[in-house]
Amino acid sequence: MPPPIEFAPHSAVILLSGGLDSATCLALALARGRDCRTISFDYGQRHRHELAAAAALSPGLGAAHHLVVPVGLGAIGGSALTDPGIAVPTAAARVGASPIPTTYVPARNLIFLALATAYAETAGASEIWIGANAVDYSGYPDCREPFLRAFERTAAIGTRAGIRPDGTAAIRVVAPLVHLSKAEIIRVGASLGVDFGLTRSCYDPQITADGKFFACGRCESCAIRRAGFLAAGIEDTTVYAPDLAHPQGAAHG
Amino acid sequence: MPPPIEFAPHSAVILLSGGLDSATCLALALARGRDCRTISFDYGQRHRHELAAAAALSPGLGAAHHLVVPVGLGAIGGSALTDPGIAVPTAAARVGASPIPTTYVPARNLIFLALATAYAETAGASEIWIGANAVDYSGYPDCREPFLRAFERTAAIGTRAGIRPDGTAAIRVVAPLVHLSKAEIIRVGASLGVDFGLTRSCYDPQITADGKFFACGRCESCAIRRAGFLAAGIEDTTVYAPDLAHPQGAAHG
Repeated sequence: MPPPIEFAPHSAVILLSGGLDSATCLALALARGRDCRTISFDYGQRHRHELAAAAALSPGLGAAHHLVVPVGLGAIGGSALTDPGIAVPTAAARVGASPIPTTYVPARNLIFLALATAYAETAGASEIWIGANAVDYSGYPDCREPFLRAFERTAAIGTRAGIRPDGTAAIRVVAPLVHLSKAEIIRVGASLGVDFGLTRSCYDPQITADGKFFACGRCESCAIRRAGFLAAGIEDTTVYAPDLAHPQGAAHG
Repeated sequence: MPPPIEFAPHSAVILLSGGLDSATCLALALARGRDCRTISFDYGQRHRHELAAAAALSPGLGAAHHLVVPVGLGAIGGSALTDPGIAVPTAAARVGASPIPTTYVPARNLIFLALATAYAETAGASEIWIGANAVDYSGYPDCREPFLRAFERTAAIGTRAGIRPDGTAAIRVVAPLVHLSKAEIIRVGASLGVDFGLTRSCYDPQITADGKFFACGRCESCAIRRAGFLAAGIEDTTVYAPDLAHPQGAAHG
């Protein structure tokens, strides 16, 4: 008979995509004394450079362990981020379009949080930290607080970890960025020493034959990132594709 | 801008493990007029023979399409079903043991339902059918009705499919076997023409070099299955390992 799982009060699983938000989320968890394990997902994403970024950011920021879990979302399809047949829209093309963009991956955070729950339960972590952000990504229903709270409850009902005697979930879902703007997230990350040059947000980058990374500067993710650095008054060290060397205009061009 | 998804009222995604319960669940969905797509998960399970069974059962029973999604649960570990370092317990060894067995895969149905939700949303299916069963598998918290209802709500909050104007989830979770005993499920499946000889339940089977399948007859899953056929008064066509040719005694031997 296996011993009961001890859920360490300061142990956390951090969802790390390799982007700016999740890197800041990890830095925050570490700053708050959490013993951190990071989890990334190899889900057939178009922006696979994020996986390399996550693998570098995890130990660089101070996580104890980094896990990559393969998930075949490409088999399911339905998103510009996993289906080569669907184009990534530019920020300009998104103006006035459907409130939920084609870069929405069906049920992505539901799937990722479910896998993080399994990892937290196995590792005895009492928290899952996610860099979900409802201000700039309001079109993604799985980035909002009501979803995250509902998920926490559902996972508690459906797992061995369960619900504590005081009625709270044994594995809490912590989303410290959910009500912050991109500029605010950048300020928090900068104050914690996150090297944003290592983070990747672009949906449609150019990678040269020798592995150099250039963000497109035109997709919605690039547009939000650039505007965030401008609003935060912090230098954007992202390397954009050469033909788009002038950040201010690119989001509109 | 993509057209809004139309959720077909009679279109369903069926979780098909290759076991007796999910095969009966699929047969029920078809009998009730659903246009069925099946989904199986290649999650590094010890009982991979189930995948072959699912691939045969899906078209055999009449599903329109069968999808296999890889999920790296082996990377997460924590279960006798995905971790070769944890032994599968015999039914006898389970008597008086922890209420949650080592064959529990952390958050399995949470993960599988999350992936099925993504598939249902992409395919425009309005239902997910799952053969979860709380009578014989009461040790698995993710097989119970409260979890399934909480999941349905959470998924609705977190996906594009969302909640209908009448307050119900656009994608319903249907669990027709949740309150049935194994014997009752077997009677239902038999009445619908399910060929149970094609279904696989054993956690620890022997597969011969030429691909012949023998159920162990000793694990908890075999014990419940055997007892179910006996109670239903229906012949058990499962082929058990030769040294356990006498079903009645094996669960205790």
